[in-house]
Amino acid sequence: MKGYSVIGKRVPRTDSLAKAIGSAKYFADITLPRMLYGRILRSPYPHAKIVNIDTSKAKALPGVKGVVTGKDTAGLPYGVSSAILDEYLLEIDKVRFVGDAVAAVAAVDEDTAEEALTLIDVDYEILPAVFDPFEAMQEGAPKIHDQVERNISARAFMHTGNVDQGFKESDYVYEDRFTFSRVSHVQMEPYGALASYDPVGKLDMWIPSSCLLIKRTALSYLLKMPLKDLRLHECCFGGHFGGRTDCQSAEFCAALLSIKTQRPVNIIYTREETMSVSKHKGNFVIDLKMGIKRDGTLVAEDAKLVMDGGAFASSWVFQVWVPYVYSEARYNIPNHRYEALRVYTNKSSCSMQRYHGDQLIFAEEQMLDKMAKDLGIDPAEIRLRNAHKAGDVLHSKSKITSFPLSETIEKAVTASEWKEKRGKLARGHGIGLACGAGMTGFQMGFRANATAIIKFNEDGSATLFTGVVDVGAGNHSMMAQVVSEELGIPMSDIVLVCSDPELTPPAPGEYSMLAAFTTAEAVRRAAVDAKQQIVKVAAPKLDVEPSSLELKEKRVYVKAYPERWIPLASIIRAAYREGNGIVGKGSCTARAMSEAGWADPLRKKYEGQHAAAYTAGTTIAEVEVDEETGEVKVLSGLPAWDCGVPINPMAVEGQWEGAMVSALGETLYEKHEWDEKTGELVTASFLDYKIPTALDTPSITPIIVEAMESEGAYGAKEAGISGSTGVRAAIANAIYDAIGIQIKENPITPEVILKALAEKSEIKRVK
Amino acid sequence: MKGYSVIGKRVPRTDSLAKAIGSAKYFADITLPRMLYGRILRSPYPHAKIVNIDTSKAKALPGVKGVVTGKDTAGLPYGVSSAILDEYLLEIDKVRFVGDAVAAVAAVDEDTAEEALTLIDVDYEILPAVFDPFEAMQEGAPKIHDQVERNISARAFMHTGNVDQGFKESDYVYEDRFTFSRVSHVQMEPYGALASYDPVGKLDMWIPSSCLLIKRTALSYLLKMPLKDLRLHECCFGGHFGGRTDCQSAEFCAALLSIKTQRPVNIIYTREETMSVSKHKGNFVIDLKMGIKRDGTLVAEDAKLVMDGGAFASSWVFQVWVPYVYSEARYNIPNHRYEALRVYTNKSSCSMQRYHGDQLIFAEEQMLDKMAKDLGIDPAEIRLRNAHKAGDVLHSKSKITSFPLSETIEKAVTASEWKEKRGKLARGHGIGLACGAGMTGFQMGFRANATAIIKFNEDGSATLFTGVVDVGAGNHSMMAQVVSEELGIPMSDIVLVCSDPELTPPAPGEYSMLAAFTTAEAVRRAAVDAKQQIVKVAAPKLDVEPSSLELKEKRVYVKAYPERWIPLASIIRAAYREGNGIVGKGSCTARAMSEAGWADPLRKKYEGQHAAAYTAGTTIAEVEVDEETGEVKVLSGLPAWDCGVPINPMAVEGQWEGAMVSALGETLYEKHEWDEKTGELVTASFLDYKIPTALDTPSITPIIVEAMESEGAYGAKEAGISGSTGVRAAIANAIYDAIGIQIKENPITPEVILKALAEKSEIKRVK
Repeated sequence: MKGYSVIGKRVPRTDSLAKAIGSAKYFADITLPRMLYGRILRSPYPHAKIVNIDTSKAKALPGVKGVVTGKDTAGLPYGVSSAILDEYLLEIDKVRFVGDAVAAVAAVDEDTAEEALTLIDVDYEILPAVFDPFEAMQEGAPKIHDQVERNISARAFMHTGNVDQGFKESDYVYEDRFTFSRVSHVQMEPYGALASYDPVGKLDMWIPSSCLLIKRTALSYLLKMPLKDLRLHECCFGGHFGGRTDCQSAEFCAALLSIKTQRPVNIIYTREETMSVSKHKGNFVIDLKMGIKRDGTLVAEDAKLVMDGGAFASSWVFQVWVPYVYSEARYNIPNHRYEALRVYTNKSSCSMQRYHGDQLIFAEEQMLDKMAKDLGIDPAEIRLRNAHKAGDVLHSKSKITSFPLSETIEKAVTASEWKEKRGKLARGHGIGLACGAGMTGFQMGFRANATAIIKFNEDGSATLFTGVVDVGAGNHSMMAQVVSEELGIPMSDIVLVCSDPELTPPAPGEYSMLAAFTTAEAVRRAAVDAKQQIVKVAAPKLDVEPSSLELKEKRVYVKAYPERWIPLASIIRAAYREGNGIVGKGSCTARAMSEAGWADPLRKKYEGQHAAAYTAGTTIAEVEVDEETGEVKVLSGLPAWDCGVPINPMAVEGQWEGAMVSALGETLYEKHEWDEKTGELVTASFLDYKIPTALDTPSITPIIVEAMESEGAYGAKEAGISGSTGVRAAIANAIYDAIGIQIKENPITPEVILKALAEKSEIKRVK
Repeated sequence: MKGYSVIGKRVPRTDSLAKAIGSAKYFADITLPRMLYGRILRSPYPHAKIVNIDTSKAKALPGVKGVVTGKDTAGLPYGVSSAILDEYLLEIDKVRFVGDAVAAVAAVDEDTAEEALTLIDVDYEILPAVFDPFEAMQEGAPKIHDQVERNISARAFMHTGNVDQGFKESDYVYEDRFTFSRVSHVQMEPYGALASYDPVGKLDMWIPSSCLLIKRTALSYLLKMPLKDLRLHECCFGGHFGGRTDCQSAEFCAALLSIKTQRPVNIIYTREETMSVSKHKGNFVIDLKMGIKRDGTLVAEDAKLVMDGGAFASSWVFQVWVPYVYSEARYNIPNHRYEALRVYTNKSSCSMQRYHGDQLIFAEEQMLDKMAKDLGIDPAEIRLRNAHKAGDVLHSKSKITSFPLSETIEKAVTASEWKEKRGKLARGHGIGLACGAGMTGFQMGFRANATAIIKFNEDGSATLFTGVVDVGAGNHSMMAQVVSEELGIPMSDIVLVCSDPELTPPAPGEYSMLAAFTTAEAVRRAAVDAKQQIVKVAAPKLDVEPSSLELKEKRVYVKAYPERWIPLASIIRAAYREGNGIVGKGSCTARAMSEAGWADPLRKKYEGQHAAAYTAGTTIAEVEVDEETGEVKVLSGLPAWDCGVPINPMAVEGQWEGAMVSALGETLYEKHEWDEKTGELVTASFLDYKIPTALDTPSITPIIVEAMESEGAYGAKEAGISGSTGVRAAIANAIYDAIGIQIKENPITPEVILKALAEKSEIKRVK
């Protein structure tokens, strides 16, 4: 970017060396003296009353130092939203899925802990279970939570215009059902937690998480322990993808066991445990209906979604609201109705996962390709005709301040040689295009605020305190870039203290995609605050006004006379000497956070600023389909995406490459399955659950489409998960181009392809 | 104190529970995975050239992981003052005392490390050594540092008025020589350091120290490592007393060995090592001459001090300047000359120790008692006639803003029933009185600044960042008191992050007695800054001006209408939600720090504000002396002292109790001795070096004499070491009262008493 020294530059990440040479401390690297190992006893039944738990034999096993059950807890339920608390991290009177936690053991080693689990006798009274969300909504279905009618966990509903009238006014109307598998986040590092209780009343914990500020609040409530007694430490961890957001039984049990034993307790889940009991990405069933005019103008959309939510509310109504955000953001469809239900079932529950909600995009974008075909309009063109643009106000009354959807289509089309290829490749080869969207920031109460502090060392280096979390995307480096830019010191001169709520002021962490938008802006403001203090001290020494000074290359310069300068370190020391310690503070809460928006999720209609900013993008994929075997190979991917203004283009591109590979996995391979009788997940290992390997990765050519976002730091906004949202549909549309069939389910396995070929599957036109 | 909720109250310390139940992490409690144990090879010669060091056999010993010698260092010398760098923490080409470090080994256990030391072959070329400072100043004496003439390490000189004329004008003149033993700080926990190097270039260290900020600067220089790569962690440690100020070979060698082995390295000195190689309190020889008028008015004083400084400069000129501060502060003596020399010898070097400089007080206060006797004036009365008072300007041009010396004399006299006892007790029983003084804050450059940061949690609890060090005196609690007072939250709601220069802004630590004065004031300002932010957010919610609000009991109140309030936590959350994160910052540099003062120690005359504040006090002791055995028993102690305004009277009293016991040890028992031939310290264990036990402790009745100190936080100033300064002399004067002899040396062992009795020793009157 012009005018900046570091911002907008392709800078290597500050943590690369530590990760490359193995110095970075990942969660599993942390051990403490006298540490015990914990294991959790889990329900073998999908739905049962706990009649009695006898832990006496387990306690008597040599090497066992502590056993806890629900009776040892304060009996409080947990919820991601404080509005709905329905999850017991250690169940008290009943279990709701196979894997629900009923007891936990701490022992001198894992084998002893594991053996102790076999010595715990639990008397269950088995209850009827339900696994399908539609069955769960039937009258007379087993009630998973006593107070909840028809097992409906949450409902999101929006209706703008008049959809029925819209369909009447449409020339063509299409309708079809789309289904999706449940998938796991598949982080390379399993879940875990380490707790170390000091009998003075202080609990230190290490939890790999997207936001320790929020974890601390939850654990403080569950453990009945004041915030100041809970120190949550940052550590590196092997992957997040939205999955380390909810509190886990590991965290709660490690804490309880450490308090009980007064020794550190480490619980690390096995891969199978991580797959079985951690939250999944919800498996939607989507009934979509869209109407269009002959000229390619979209007139109406009616989307009905049902999501298998599993045993607990987890992210609750937010999960069934997100698809709407992506849907309303992309195209101007005057009549739009959306209803999504989240339904309890006796399975592990579902939460947020990277690009949650892209399922609806898969349906919509394929329907658009079918419309384009029927109307004889180029798929890119039909999207351009309906695309939203910056300044538009959405149905929800959200204003989109930057949204270069059309530009991303145009750049993707040009870069991919779309016009030369689309419909012109050999049979079995195809190219597909789909638009996606993303959002930055939604309502999180005070937790949406980011505050940052910068403290200077006497040599001009500095420590930055921020609650930002780096899940691997480079957020730490980004914050160092901001400080470096504003204060004219090298990134390597900045020590980062991140995500340790005892030390760091609030920040949304990795929640709500706010790092580049809000946290970076808070850091920028803290740096500007420090800069103002610095130039005030320097000005009399250089005999100019403070405003005449700038900070560069570890010096304070007179802008107009660059030969006049003082080392920054001298000014810092002078400031301290004079009693003006340089401490910068910055605070930022994004627009959507402070406005009413849909802040009250219990309202029937969610009007207001849904997200602080919206991201637009287009993904083009080329595929090869083997019509004999049904195998699909993605040859190349071209994400042309908006990220506002990139703070580090290299990091942005890396995110979009990851986004494509991740979405490709869900599209083609990933699927969880349950034993219908026992309710047990049968795909809990990498033997049964397939993810893409490096060999399945296409060549990816990211294109950054800059769009100044007035609300974000330096014009930046989210640049990560949104890049995944068009991938499913782009691959499906490429398959359509390659072999003329449309796919209505994910993953698109060879069997699905062969079945679709047999059925000559296309989306149904009903008018 | 009136008007305050917490300040001035007798509050229990926040760390008491942790220390009582063993939770507090002392230095020796810290272990790290893969930690090695280090030992240091030390010179057996007092003065020798290092011809060659062969470490090959040591390196070959199984279990040895690293060996370092001076050749592995950057070759830089260390100094407490950056103006004089003469100490090699690992010697390169010569050794200067028995115990000087020549090599260090890290091994898997201490025994292996110890064995490896025996396998290191060092070729020495023995040089002539000198142990006595007067001999060392002779022409032709061995030169300990090549560039230093006559081994004079430092000289302090002040002359006001005309001393020779003054003696002429005096009616009586007295002159005598006083000698003192060298003593150790005798902390219960030995010295040590733990270093853990991460190959990304970061070194974590745990060092028990009075100021990690200053240690970090020194180690950064010695290791050629930027400040931001050096993290020094706080830990509890068993005693300080000024001894953990200088950098130790342990720190330097642990760092070098950790860098070399890429594993944590822990070096803990043995008791003998701690005694032998750590800095001592200097053994002065004092020639004192004083003149007085018949009416009891002091006219002239001439003090000549020579201090055995040992092998290195350490605290250098500061050590020979401190006695002057105490001397000029107490009494108005119009003609005053002071010369003190610090002399290098081939012994371990001397540094600051609690109440360093009280040796001159011992001499002066006994001379005063002799004058009082000769003039027939009560010893209390003679002091009252000459005492300085607040507002006086000293010879150095230092202004003393608070100095209730007379009040302390009066209160001590009343409380001790002085008039009924002095000269009236049975033979062998005596009561003695002496005045002392203390100072708060001297010039330390930017390091004299204290800056503090307060960050709020969403529940209204807060984290305080300050560089304060708690050596056991309760400084941590004091800072919590200040925050509690200003922000209306309980002390237990404040998490303290102290003395970790990566996290904490600068502060003098325990240096220069500035905790209550400067650091507490910085914390107060940070709290006031936070309060201003809080009331600004709260004001519109309570529909009043910010100035109408006050913070109490975790609430924000309208002062005039106490029924109108909002919980503090709600305001904090609102502030974050509104983008106004509550972060308070305060910074303070005491007067003497920012004024020129004697900042340039190379100047010949040290005029200016020597100390930011002065403390006055009177100590009365009662003793019983057995004239047969020479044994002295201190029966009671009554320190009536000034501490400005006490922030926590209980802590102040505790300090004065400790001060009395510590000074009692030096007065009666403590003495280091060397083998005159080998230069080896022969008193390096508790078998040979005697300290007082609980049975030797008298009953102590501290009396706090309040004196508002305008410069300090809430009127506070130093309240610790000053309380020791009168003890030696009070005991000596009590002995004088008991058996009519005056003692001119310390410790006052039975042999000294018996000798003095034989000689009927009194201070000599020469006119």
